[in-house]
Amino acid sequence: MDVVMRILDFAGTAVFAVTGALAAGRKRMDIFGVVVLGCVTALGGGTLRDVVLGIQPIFWVSDTRYLAVATIAAICTFFLARIWKLPMTVLMYADALGLAVFTVIGFQKAFDATHAYGIAIVMGVTTGVAGGLIRDILSGEVPLILRREIYASASLCGGAMLALLSGLELPAPIVLSGAVLTTLVIRVVALHWNLSLPLFRFEEDKEDEARRELRSGGDD
Amino acid sequence: MDVVMRILDFAGTAVFAVTGALAAGRKRMDIFGVVVLGCVTALGGGTLRDVVLGIQPIFWVSDTRYLAVATIAAICTFFLARIWKLPMTVLMYADALGLAVFTVIGFQKAFDATHAYGIAIVMGVTTGVAGGLIRDILSGEVPLILRREIYASASLCGGAMLALLSGLELPAPIVLSGAVLTTLVIRVVALHWNLSLPLFRFEEDKEDEARRELRSGGDD
Amino acid sequence: MDVVMRILDFAGTAVFAVTGALAAGRKRMDIFGVVVLGCVTALGGGTLRDVVLGIQPIFWVSDTRYLAVATIAAICTFFLARIWKLPMTVLMYADALGLAVFTVIGFQKAFDATHAYGIAIVMGVTTGVAGGLIRDILSGEVPLILRREIYASASLCGGAMLALLSGLELPAPIVLSGAVLTTLVIRVVALHWNLSLPLFRFEEDKEDEARRELRSGGDD
Repeated sequence: MDVVMRILDFAGTAVFAVTGALAAGRKRMDIFGVVVLGCVTALGGGTLRDVVLGIQPIFWVSDTRYLAVATIAAICTFFLARIWKLPMTVLMYADALGLAVFTVIGFQKAFDATHAYGIAIVMGVTTGVAGGLIRDILSGEVPLILRREIYASASLCGGAMLALLSGLELPAPIVLSGAVLTTLVIRVVALHWNLSLPLFRFEEDKEDEARRELRSGGDD
Repeated sequence: MDVVMRILDFAGTAVFAVTGALAAGRKRMDIFGVVVLGCVTALGGGTLRDVVLGIQPIFWVSDTRYLAVATIAAICTFFLARIWKLPMTVLMYADALGLAVFTVIGFQKAFDATHAYGIAIVMGVTTGVAGGLIRDILSGEVPLILRREIYASASLCGGAMLALLSGLELPAPIVLSGAVLTTLVIRVVALHWNLSLPLFRFEEDKEDEARRELRSGGDD
Repeated sequence: MDVVMRILDFAGTAVFAVTGALAAGRKRMDIFGVVVLGCVTALGGGTLRDVVLGIQPIFWVSDTRYLAVATIAAICTFFLARIWKLPMTVLMYADALGLAVFTVIGFQKAFDATHAYGIAIVMGVTTGVAGGLIRDILSGEVPLILRREIYASASLCGGAMLALLSGLELPAPIVLSGAVLTTLVIRVVALHWNLSLPLFRFEEDKEDEARRELRSGGDD
């Protein structure tokens, strides 16, 4: 099981690096910007997790293969995107798997360090989404995951499921695959049917909407 | 006095989480975005402080009540803002208290760790303002506190007062309330009379202004 | 040699603080915003490096002269920019020296901590460019160094040269000045001839361009 998680971890790292590299491409960055944004997306969440938990050395300092995987994935994206357009949907599903795996790994590292389920769930979500957050900030966009799609929420549910299954003291393979599948299924379902959570709604919004319906045309 | 500071600390955490949740609401984030932005605003400053000072475990990892207070405050904001509009001024004054308390707590933690007044003042300001900074960045705005209002400067004065009163070896209740009141009064006065510090002014600006006065109308 | 590097280090800190203060000025921040942005630009890269490497205390906590140099440089910029306009080119060349020195210092600190050349090169680049990155994010701009100019790439080459010369076990003065000069020369040449690396190019871009050439006029 450990080997499976390790392989999934590297796969998730590569996928996240590809999403970072593509975001860099949309902003017309040069190859260095592409590699930086790829690495930050792939390694940012885990770095924040290790720094907050005080785990030293940081995972990609103690195992340089993570840095190598992210760098190579970003460079390949830089060159391949010129000749071949990866279908966005394939990337989104691969990204969902990365999210699911990173959530579980973040949860486990945090639980080993603190033995508190609440912290472990928060750190699982952090590991899963912080890289993408930093990617969006560095490329000058409002972080999408804070807006519409069920993304971080899928990670949250995976963490909660992991806490539940660990609490029941089930064997590790069941616990891990249950948590990975929870995040993965929720994310894929949300992607497929384009679901979203209820949005924040101010009292004044309703008045605004009423007013907007009254006016026809306008410079808004 | 310790109990009073602890209560004020939780109150400040809740208020900061509310400001984060409202910022998330203005950007139409879903409930998860609201909770994340609330927690980041409430816990971000202290997290940066503990990470920079190397204090492990981070305050909200060792005492999970901070995370609970911030999460609950953000969730309540999400639901209450639909039916009840909190007057913005009330929130601004509450926020001023949070700023004052966080400054004092940040100063004390840093002074205990380093015994250097300069570092302690910097860390007081960091604890007070970094959460709001990250909130503004995540919601895609130029951090307001870096622009106009006397916000971080109030925190700076509170820290300087705390250094001064500590140096005079006055009893703790006087030192703490003196520092809290300094920040609070400066911030409230600035809010009430809409004060601001002198802005940065380039040499070339004056020419620009002269030119602008000559032209009448324009596409600027 | 140690004294020379120390002096260059403080000079680099001052130059970076000036660039931060000027960026704050362009956004019309008040004096506090100017000092914060100056300090963050000057100290941000090294802070991130020390946090990721787990070096405690952070360099500017253990030696408060860094904080003093950055603060004074930012305050002087605030007042001097009103009466005297520094030629931008002078600043750019001074900034190139800062980048070169920070790269070498970051590399050495990371190599001492990890004994891994890959990590050391990454940390050299981080020390050199992260401060400027945070400056751009805080002042609401897409980080320029991720876009066009050969900036981080110059830092990367300096780090690689340092790794190479260290591996050859040459005497320290040659190793250090070789690495500093590599970054400096590449950056200055890029500045002077306005060079840039190849940009990311999607397959679809070519179609876009073809289409754009067909259309004449448009609202783009």
